[in-house]
Amino acid sequence: MMNKQRLNTIIGKMEQKGLDQVVITSPESIFYLLGEWIHPGERMLALYIHKTGKTKLVLNALFPIEKDLGVPIEFYNDTEDPIEYLMKDVEDKVVMGIDKEWASHFLIRLMKKMPDLKIEIGSSVVDEARMIKDEEERELMRKASAINDKVMAEAIEIVKSGCSELEVGKRLADVYAKYDTPAFSFDPLICYGKGAAEPHHSSDETKWSNNQCVIVDIGGVTDNYASDMTRSFFIGEPNEEYKKIYALVKKANEAGIQAVKPGAKFSDIDKAARKVIEDGGYGPYFTHRTGHNIGISCHEAPDVSMTNDMEVQEGMAFSIEPGIYLSGKYGVRIEDLVLVTKDGCEVLNKYPKDLTIVKA
Amino acid sequence: MMNKQRLNTIIGKMEQKGLDQVVITSPESIFYLLGEWIHPGERMLALYIHKTGKTKLVLNALFPIEKDLGVPIEFYNDTEDPIEYLMKDVEDKVVMGIDKEWASHFLIRLMKKMPDLKIEIGSSVVDEARMIKDEEERELMRKASAINDKVMAEAIEIVKSGCSELEVGKRLADVYAKYDTPAFSFDPLICYGKGAAEPHHSSDETKWSNNQCVIVDIGGVTDNYASDMTRSFFIGEPNEEYKKIYALVKKANEAGIQAVKPGAKFSDIDKAARKVIEDGGYGPYFTHRTGHNIGISCHEAPDVSMTNDMEVQEGMAFSIEPGIYLSGKYGVRIEDLVLVTKDGCEVLNKYPKDLTIVKA
Repeated sequence: MMNKQRLNTIIGKMEQKGLDQVVITSPESIFYLLGEWIHPGERMLALYIHKTGKTKLVLNALFPIEKDLGVPIEFYNDTEDPIEYLMKDVEDKVVMGIDKEWASHFLIRLMKKMPDLKIEIGSSVVDEARMIKDEEERELMRKASAINDKVMAEAIEIVKSGCSELEVGKRLADVYAKYDTPAFSFDPLICYGKGAAEPHHSSDETKWSNNQCVIVDIGGVTDNYASDMTRSFFIGEPNEEYKKIYALVKKANEAGIQAVKPGAKFSDIDKAARKVIEDGGYGPYFTHRTGHNIGISCHEAPDVSMTNDMEVQEGMAFSIEPGIYLSGKYGVRIEDLVLVTKDGCEVLNKYPKDLTIVKA
Repeated sequence: MMNKQRLNTIIGKMEQKGLDQVVITSPESIFYLLGEWIHPGERMLALYIHKTGKTKLVLNALFPIEKDLGVPIEFYNDTEDPIEYLMKDVEDKVVMGIDKEWASHFLIRLMKKMPDLKIEIGSSVVDEARMIKDEEERELMRKASAINDKVMAEAIEIVKSGCSELEVGKRLADVYAKYDTPAFSFDPLICYGKGAAEPHHSSDETKWSNNQCVIVDIGGVTDNYASDMTRSFFIGEPNEEYKKIYALVKKANEAGIQAVKPGAKFSDIDKAARKVIEDGGYGPYFTHRTGHNIGISCHEAPDVSMTNDMEVQEGMAFSIEPGIYLSGKYGVRIEDLVLVTKDGCEVLNKYPKDLTIVKA
């Protein structure tokens, strides 16, 4: 059912940004507004919103919807052009905001039929609304991360049983399922040893062995909201260098969290975490942004990065995930999700982050 | 390494269609040309081709490529605008073909910076090249489907062990893996009983039980090429109506295959299969197109459907998959892949399609 409060927030933002109308096409944003998942694949799905409050959903007839979604629905079939259905309500010669991910062929066809439309990228109105989690969403974010804490505890037991990276990932599907979490928010990233130091390592057949590190970066989707947490462990006895970088990353994670409050810039949070690692002499080995916002999607706008000067607001949810990666040796990353409160933040992950030695 | 023959085919098609230049962004099409998978997610990936043969790849520096791909690569980083890198070589004021799936925000940014470009949908030049499988691809299609035949035999054994729909699917991942097929071409569709009659049933926790039908629609990706086959079985003793619709669907599948040859229209093939079912009195219960082309992607253009009058050519590969769905009772679908030869077609699936009764 159309969430009127969320719709009004979006219309307010359309007015601020001079968008007379928008076409929203991402299934996540449509779910955010209507509470209904519609996955028509390559077939066109479009939620049209005019600044006067008029709305319409255009959907392929292969995806029938029986219930009242609080928005008029126009169904087209496979032999018809869905753009014609969309156009019926579009106001010509004014500004039209387009969902950033809409496949170009739809946009090109719309522009050919209505060449006087003033096309702009329009999805920021929904993305900005989605940035601020309302009470219902905050509770769902807490629940998803509480489950992720439990799964992390089981993940490390599975690691200890000697599984390969990929095998750990496979078994985690059942663990999440046990906690009513039917899907990963991303493929589990289990990285042993040198793999943990590669910036884009995917889990592979690498097996557990003694005297190496392991990074466990996992998340699930519980009641449509994503979790995402990383912990790093050592199998056997770590050397001094590993202990040192572990301590630095933990301190950086805590410094990042400490910097979170309404009014702080995302870049300040990145700097707070990065400074700890730079001061420790490992600046060049922290090779990525400090975090990303999260909600219905695992990666939402904006980033927690050096170049993002946007101010943090109450109700935002994002990750703080500094890391140090020493090529050919090991990597450490520690990631928590935070929810911004009136004067700081609530850390959604409670799983301990002290250096843990896993016995072989 | 850039496949020169495939590139030349594409440039020939650009000339035919009046496209001075194109931007190809689908990872599948880029793999088709370069033999390299690049999956940069939301970050821009673009292969630029000018009709003079000039090419360039624009790629985020987070995805370093060491080997020579036979195309100049421009790397951008996260703080830079990739559109600027792309524009350096784009010829202004002439026609630019755009990949149909390119995210609109890239296209809108390009149009703002180069408002005199004449934008068209451009991916058909690659899609049409990909439609005609060359010798190397034909061999890979044969191999993928031969493996799918073996997996089907094991799938039905897993079904017989009494698994739920989802559990069968999960266990098939290991079966495919055993045959060097690391991924599904789509989530396995195992449908028991009434679920088999639903047009968009997804596998769920429904368990095996006596006196019901089962549809098994599965495919894997072997050496980057997709397979896709459906067989229908009955658990226990089917009634006369089921036997009748099974026989009709099998005859429709064979009639469709019989109609495949260079010069036939896709719509003729659809009609040949559909006529059998219509003549048998079940026309309204065959609720979808007869098939789809397949190759690197499981669903490639074009469809085998009533409305597609394109002529079939030697080297095309597509599915023939008629079905009958009786709501609340059962469904039957029989699907084979065919490869078009000089005067007919080679059926890639050899798994038997006689009515098979699975004993409980």
